Amino acid sequence: MATTLIKNGTVVNATGTASADVLVDGETIAAVLAPGSVLLGHDLERSVDTVVDAAGKYVIPGGIDAHTHMEMPFGGTFASDTFETGTRAAAWGGTTTIVDFVVQYAGENVLDQYHLWHEKAAGNCAVDYGFHQILSDVDDDSLKAMDQLVIEGVTSFKLFMAYQGVLLSDDGQILRAMQKAAENGSMIMMHAENGGMIDVLVQQLLAEGKTDPYWHGISRPWQAEEEATHRAIMIANLTGAPLYVVHVSAKQAVQQIAAARDAGQNVFGETCPQYLYLSLEEQLGASGPEWGSFEGAKWVCSTPLRARAEGHQDHMWQALRTNDIQMVSTDHCPFCMKDQKDLGIGSFAKIPNGIGSVEHRMDLMYQGVVTGQISLPRWVELTSTTPARMFGLHGRKGVIQPGADADVVVYDPRGHTSIGVGKTHHMNMDYSAWEGFEVDGHVDTVLSRGRIVVDGGDYVGAKGHGRYLKRGLSQYLL
Amino acid sequence: MATTLIKNGTVVNATGTASADVLVDGETIAAVLAPGSVLLGHDLERSVDTVVDAAGKYVIPGGIDAHTHMEMPFGGTFASDTFETGTRAAAWGGTTTIVDFVVQYAGENVLDQYHLWHEKAAGNCAVDYGFHQILSDVDDDSLKAMDQLVIEGVTSFKLFMAYQGVLLSDDGQILRAMQKAAENGSMIMMHAENGGMIDVLVQQLLAEGKTDPYWHGISRPWQAEEEATHRAIMIANLTGAPLYVVHVSAKQAVQQIAAARDAGQNVFGETCPQYLYLSLEEQLGASGPEWGSFEGAKWVCSTPLRARAEGHQDHMWQALRTNDIQMVSTDHCPFCMKDQKDLGIGSFAKIPNGIGSVEHRMDLMYQGVVTGQISLPRWVELTSTTPARMFGLHGRKGVIQPGADADVVVYDPRGHTSIGVGKTHHMNMDYSAWEGFEVDGHVDTVLSRGRIVVDGGDYVGAKGHGRYLKRGLSQYLL
Amino acid sequence: MATTLIKNGTVVNATGTASADVLVDGETIAAVLAPGSVLLGHDLERSVDTVVDAAGKYVIPGGIDAHTHMEMPFGGTFASDTFETGTRAAAWGGTTTIVDFVVQYAGENVLDQYHLWHEKAAGNCAVDYGFHQILSDVDDDSLKAMDQLVIEGVTSFKLFMAYQGVLLSDDGQILRAMQKAAENGSMIMMHAENGGMIDVLVQQLLAEGKTDPYWHGISRPWQAEEEATHRAIMIANLTGAPLYVVHVSAKQAVQQIAAARDAGQNVFGETCPQYLYLSLEEQLGASGPEWGSFEGAKWVCSTPLRARAEGHQDHMWQALRTNDIQMVSTDHCPFCMKDQKDLGIGSFAKIPNGIGSVEHRMDLMYQGVVTGQISLPRWVELTSTTPARMFGLHGRKGVIQPGADADVVVYDPRGHTSIGVGKTHHMNMDYSAWEGFEVDGHVDTVLSRGRIVVDGGDYVGAKGHGRYLKRGLSQYLL
Amino acid sequence: MATTLIKNGTVVNATGTASADVLVDGETIAAVLAPGSVLLGHDLERSVDTVVDAAGKYVIPGGIDAHTHMEMPFGGTFASDTFETGTRAAAWGGTTTIVDFVVQYAGENVLDQYHLWHEKAAGNCAVDYGFHQILSDVDDDSLKAMDQLVIEGVTSFKLFMAYQGVLLSDDGQILRAMQKAAENGSMIMMHAENGGMIDVLVQQLLAEGKTDPYWHGISRPWQAEEEATHRAIMIANLTGAPLYVVHVSAKQAVQQIAAARDAGQNVFGETCPQYLYLSLEEQLGASGPEWGSFEGAKWVCSTPLRARAEGHQDHMWQALRTNDIQMVSTDHCPFCMKDQKDLGIGSFAKIPNGIGSVEHRMDLMYQGVVTGQISLPRWVELTSTTPARMFGLHGRKGVIQPGADADVVVYDPRGHTSIGVGKTHHMNMDYSAWEGFEVDGHVDTVLSRGRIVVDGGDYVGAKGHGRYLKRGLSQYLL
Repeated sequence: MATTLIKNGTVVNATGTASADVLVDGETIAAVLAPGSVLLGHDLERSVDTVVDAAGKYVIPGGIDAHTHMEMPFGGTFASDTFETGTRAAAWGGTTTIVDFVVQYAGENVLDQYHLWHEKAAGNCAVDYGFHQILSDVDDDSLKAMDQLVIEGVTSFKLFMAYQGVLLSDDGQILRAMQKAAENGSMIMMHAENGGMIDVLVQQLLAEGKTDPYWHGISRPWQAEEEATHRAIMIANLTGAPLYVVHVSAKQAVQQIAAARDAGQNVFGETCPQYLYLSLEEQLGASGPEWGSFEGAKWVCSTPLRARAEGHQDHMWQALRTNDIQMVSTDHCPFCMKDQKDLGIGSFAKIPNGIGSVEHRMDLMYQGVVTGQISLPRWVELTSTTPARMFGLHGRKGVIQPGADADVVVYDPRGHTSIGVGKTHHMNMDYSAWEGFEVDGHVDTVLSRGRIVVDGGDYVGAKGHGRYLKRGLSQYLL
Repeated sequence: MATTLIKNGTVVNATGTASADVLVDGETIAAVLAPGSVLLGHDLERSVDTVVDAAGKYVIPGGIDAHTHMEMPFGGTFASDTFETGTRAAAWGGTTTIVDFVVQYAGENVLDQYHLWHEKAAGNCAVDYGFHQILSDVDDDSLKAMDQLVIEGVTSFKLFMAYQGVLLSDDGQILRAMQKAAENGSMIMMHAENGGMIDVLVQQLLAEGKTDPYWHGISRPWQAEEEATHRAIMIANLTGAPLYVVHVSAKQAVQQIAAARDAGQNVFGETCPQYLYLSLEEQLGASGPEWGSFEGAKWVCSTPLRARAEGHQDHMWQALRTNDIQMVSTDHCPFCMKDQKDLGIGSFAKIPNGIGSVEHRMDLMYQGVVTGQISLPRWVELTSTTPARMFGLHGRKGVIQPGADADVVVYDPRGHTSIGVGKTHHMNMDYSAWEGFEVDGHVDTVLSRGRIVVDGGDYVGAKGHGRYLKRGLSQYLL
Repeated sequence: MATTLIKNGTVVNATGTASADVLVDGETIAAVLAPGSVLLGHDLERSVDTVVDAAGKYVIPGGIDAHTHMEMPFGGTFASDTFETGTRAAAWGGTTTIVDFVVQYAGENVLDQYHLWHEKAAGNCAVDYGFHQILSDVDDDSLKAMDQLVIEGVTSFKLFMAYQGVLLSDDGQILRAMQKAAENGSMIMMHAENGGMIDVLVQQLLAEGKTDPYWHGISRPWQAEEEATHRAIMIANLTGAPLYVVHVSAKQAVQQIAAARDAGQNVFGETCPQYLYLSLEEQLGASGPEWGSFEGAKWVCSTPLRARAEGHQDHMWQALRTNDIQMVSTDHCPFCMKDQKDLGIGSFAKIPNGIGSVEHRMDLMYQGVVTGQISLPRWVELTSTTPARMFGLHGRKGVIQPGADADVVVYDPRGHTSIGVGKTHHMNMDYSAWEGFEVDGHVDTVLSRGRIVVDGGDYVGAKGHGRYLKRGLSQYLL
Repeated sequence: MATTLIKNGTVVNATGTASADVLVDGETIAAVLAPGSVLLGHDLERSVDTVVDAAGKYVIPGGIDAHTHMEMPFGGTFASDTFETGTRAAAWGGTTTIVDFVVQYAGENVLDQYHLWHEKAAGNCAVDYGFHQILSDVDDDSLKAMDQLVIEGVTSFKLFMAYQGVLLSDDGQILRAMQKAAENGSMIMMHAENGGMIDVLVQQLLAEGKTDPYWHGISRPWQAEEEATHRAIMIANLTGAPLYVVHVSAKQAVQQIAAARDAGQNVFGETCPQYLYLSLEEQLGASGPEWGSFEGAKWVCSTPLRARAEGHQDHMWQALRTNDIQMVSTDHCPFCMKDQKDLGIGSFAKIPNGIGSVEHRMDLMYQGVVTGQISLPRWVELTSTTPARMFGLHGRKGVIQPGADADVVVYDPRGHTSIGVGKTHHMNMDYSAWEGFEVDGHVDTVLSRGRIVVDGGDYVGAKGHGRYLKRGLSQYLL
């Protein structure tokens, strides 16, 4: 087994920093030691296969993106990143674990889908991966499947309060799934938007000829998100199930989550970089030469981008600081403009929903450190440590400590990253939602389970290196 | 320099656990390494001076008690523990750092007092110590002293909203001190009780012949604590100073702190074991054969023990889980019954205020793990990691990582601790506020800066080993 | 036209009392005048047909019960009071106006139902009556009907968030109805319980053999009410429609309503005497000799009686004082035990839901004055003035002022009322939900549009006296 | 005794309107009767001395301004309106009752002051007047005086949390006064600003050379008001005293009051027209030719005008609608620019605090009806009915009903009022804080205890007509 010494760096964990060297032996971290790499007279540097000099750089646990949708079937097409292209892009961006969503659409069999996703991922991933399970039909079969999946290491189940007839579970189904989760210890993840309200608004807007991407944002008002968030919290309150609300974008939803936590309930929230940086006005209101007013389709996702004038983005950064929002994932769900997003020309309702960011999350959130929005340890906590704890991976992932998988990123605060097609962009998309963003830092070196997969910014990993992660129960519950 | 290997234990840090060995070289942790202690073929166990077998035990960062009052002059007497007896008792209980309060009573000079406290502590401490500074007279001199003290490593200043004429700062003084703190980056600590209200209530109770210790609790109602907490928060809001509320006991005060945090303000709260376990009914309402109804004096402290029927204790445990309260200190302020507490026979207002717990905090809080109130990592976070971050010690204290001071406790979850005079009780007190408490765990071994000071439960440390800690600014701010 | 002088009483209006005489001329109040009944030398007492001496008594506007269900078809049976028996009982109890609900069950035509209800009521009522319209199918037809009904004086529309397939409107339907209400100025009334949650709980309880009436209460937890209340508020927030939540029973629902009002939204709440006086423990938990454990069926209503141990009843009284709840109606929906309630032997889900109280509301609420829960003016405001303003009747009803309909009650605070079958009970029911309640007051005389219909406690009115009330838009909006 | 018939008007009471005639006989209202003025064949119009035709106009209870400071000594000068000029101006503006403040400055005797105020007012007032008592020294004597004053009809006591050494009561004194109020049923009124904070800010601003009126607003930030409001609420909570917060201007203070009410506490708030219409930016930020930047002194009052950008004004209108603020008074405290306000040239701290509005309140609030901020009944409730109920005058004042004092205003919605020096302005001031305000309505006729004092806009009253009002306890408590 190969050994690597990462020396002279500043190790950043969730609670603080340390000047320390990190010794990797095979797939795991063997030791974290005082700089100098001499232990009781033994000069470790001489004994290792590889030395990475991290002087002046941060040594952080590899990013964990707990919300991706590789190759997801959606509206007659597929998310444009395969497990191969998506996880490679993730590696490039310093993310060494993804947790992807197995989809059960209405009418499909849960376990069949679970096996199908294994087939899609196996042998193709550049970094490690786990699965959440999406449930649409909550019935006796799928409830039974929940128990089996927990044994398989799928300890979190996502439900939808929108997308009637496709993904939506009604409140009775949510109640039953939550009862099961309370029983077997798993986590309920929720897409919290009131689909009933939204469906009516969509129909009305389209009937009024309001078909451009901008109206997508208008069709999904904050009230729909706040309402569904509260409803999910109340059903969770009744059942005792832990609840994790995905892609929170409205400040009012944040307030619901904060209030529930203050009352002692196991309720958590995730946001995404797009809800911190982008807005309804600037993106969906935009029009450009190439795509005409349809260019906003690039940023059509759900929950939608929110109005900056209403203060959602500022409130979201604040919530990251106060821990009222605990994690940042990407909701990586990439679609190309050509042949995919453009299905929605003439009707925003037909635009495949999604933004691709799996490659940029660590950089974009580091920029929050640069601008003073969050601290350095909080950056690691939001992007790696809490995701690991939330989804039963702590100890193996999310921390620089002996015994953990050697998923390590050397991040250079004096480096620079320009984002855009043709720059840092290795996702399978013909545009970038982040075109033109500049980050005052750079992912230099990435190790995945001890293997260097990105070296000086070059991808040197291999398809199939990534392994399936059997996850345990959440380690973050109150 | 001596070397020690703590092997086979479960290292517990604030975010989770790891099976790992800890190598101590001189005063600091040299490495944390995978169990087995063989690194790249080097068998470390053979090279070290001392091996501590921690199999089946927890290896945690030494406790940090950020609120003690050794030898504090109060009402014509002194807190009964000297720095020598108090820090020795701390060591016995797994606490390897205290932050004690230099007192400026009204009329005294801040820097004179600061130097006086150094004289009291120097050469006497069993473990490391730092200082907070209490300010009573906030004037041009003391404001200037704040800047000087920050350079000296005293980066937190405590003010009192009670004890008129002795310790109380009025709102204008609090404002000025907070402006200075906002400017120089230091932390304002607050004894948040409305002294004006309390003084009237005390006079009225005494005038009615209600002189027993029980009435102490009645004279300091939750409204007085909630009010002062809110007032401190608002002044902090105006100035931008960070605020740390000491010894929070009322659930309504917790709610004020939580609301301020949710609004993005740097407001933090500390509670103490007495507010989690003890109550107005059970302690102050008690009467016993020896002391008659005066026995309640043992638990006269301020803020006072609260009524269990009002739910304060349950809410406080919940707040520890939700991080609405961030830390547990002791407010260790011991007085003997004889010649000290008994000054208050005939008038509860003359009972020296204080409870001694510096020896028991780690055990008492571990019992919260046993009973399921908090998790194992949260135990470490509340008692060590957050105190270190809150008060500018992280990196040196509060974490098991290379480069940190080797303040390490080996805690045995299969051990047992009976608390009381004649059992675990080495504080200089003739009674125990915790008489009869049983804890399902035991402090086995304690290292302070690399030196074993408690071995198998025996104290083997030495007076003068403990050094003064120059603290940096808080590492916990939003 | 006959004239009546009510002399020497204490007139009670919503803001206070006055010693005054009330002169009735024909159907309306002609004057309110200083006691003595001599105006500029004219002795009115000599000129009138009838004199009612109200010395020592309260003269109040007749009660308005804005929530009754006469002859309502429900689960294969009909509410046991016809418009004839129900309004007669109302008169006996000092209630001179009811607003009853026209029901559109799923599949029925709104306007057909509206006309059907007119047929049922016309010529049968002892006192005046208006209609709210229940909508189940919210579609283009029913939305159009809403405009027509507003012209007809039906300015309030009730939707259900429970009773799937029978009465429930989904969130999209609620949204559309609220948009229409915002447009035409009408009020949306909401039965706010999450039917989806409840249906699952009912099935689970029955499957566990929990079939007794007690389980009805358990199947409809406060979370289901709080959730639906919040959801309705959010949809109203989006649309701008005013919202009136019927039969609020959970304190958490009260808090949602209060929060919305404090934020400036037109959200109102009604409670009923049963939620103030009765409880899950005392009524549904009861068992008796006659009916066995099925006796609790007497109090099966929805929302259900709540647990007194959770503090709902105390909080509801408080909310009446703070105006966080604005009105008290009865939700009068009477069923006999024999052949009706007993349909639910073996399954609580088959018990017709409802309690009959139309006769007792004024008395029961007056008892709240006696016990100090509410003031005398507040009694009148809750039971008459606000109902009139809320539902567009102010000026005609709800106030003792010239020009108003002479709906007047002389209430004797030295009288006494014993409630129960065989005592004050003229509703068509074979039991009383209020058996054994004693009230320290008595309805002496009741005038309905100038005609004495209750005289010294005897009913002297006539079927067909009561007329249909075309109501205006709400006069209570912010 | 003279008789007057006000015919054909629209009577507006707090809960709604009525087309009715009002018959005045001597000092009181004899009857309110249906239009036409013929009662049982008696034509009243022929029998009366005077007929006022109110066709097309509103007939409302005379305004009650519960917060005035006539001839108040302040900072070496006196408020520029005497009881004579001030009450005459009040009459002109439709206000027929004032409640003025007897001042006990520190060191003065309460009852001496009370008698002094009687001397000042007796024989000078155009309309009726009552007194509140200001207490500065809360000691055994003044507590005893509280009981005596309640018997004298002074049932409300105002304390100050600002103005150290002059008016301020400390928290212990507030506690004692509230205990007394809880005991004798009186109301505590509070000037809620944290004087300790403000004094420091004032000193600092002046030391920085910030002496212009603008800095007055900056020296009294919303945090100082919110804090003191909360503190007063908590002391009231402990004692059980009812609390009435005067001149609320900060939205955060409103929120504190609303929260306390929602929790069932007797806490009320008053605002003033200046906090609804004027702002820090527009008034205090202004500069003009005559006074240079000192012109802002015209609007120096405490609490200060608030920043419109922070939303205080909008929130205050909302609070008037939701009844989170219950009343509008003026805090009429007039000072001339010449020789009074200009004492503050060179130091904003020396500007006499106060705005004069006693003449304009009814007009300014009616304009809120015109602009849709409040309803017509709410106008009457805020300016007359609730003041009467709050301060123990209901039945005599605040309502058009028989037996009440005939304080009646005929208000013409088709009239117009231009405010400013030389227009509607009869207060003894050399400027108007409301210069240039236009109101779409007009006070036509005013009766004070049956006597016409304003007729067609002309003052026809007389000095000495106004009588002292012995007030009862509050009729507005929960």
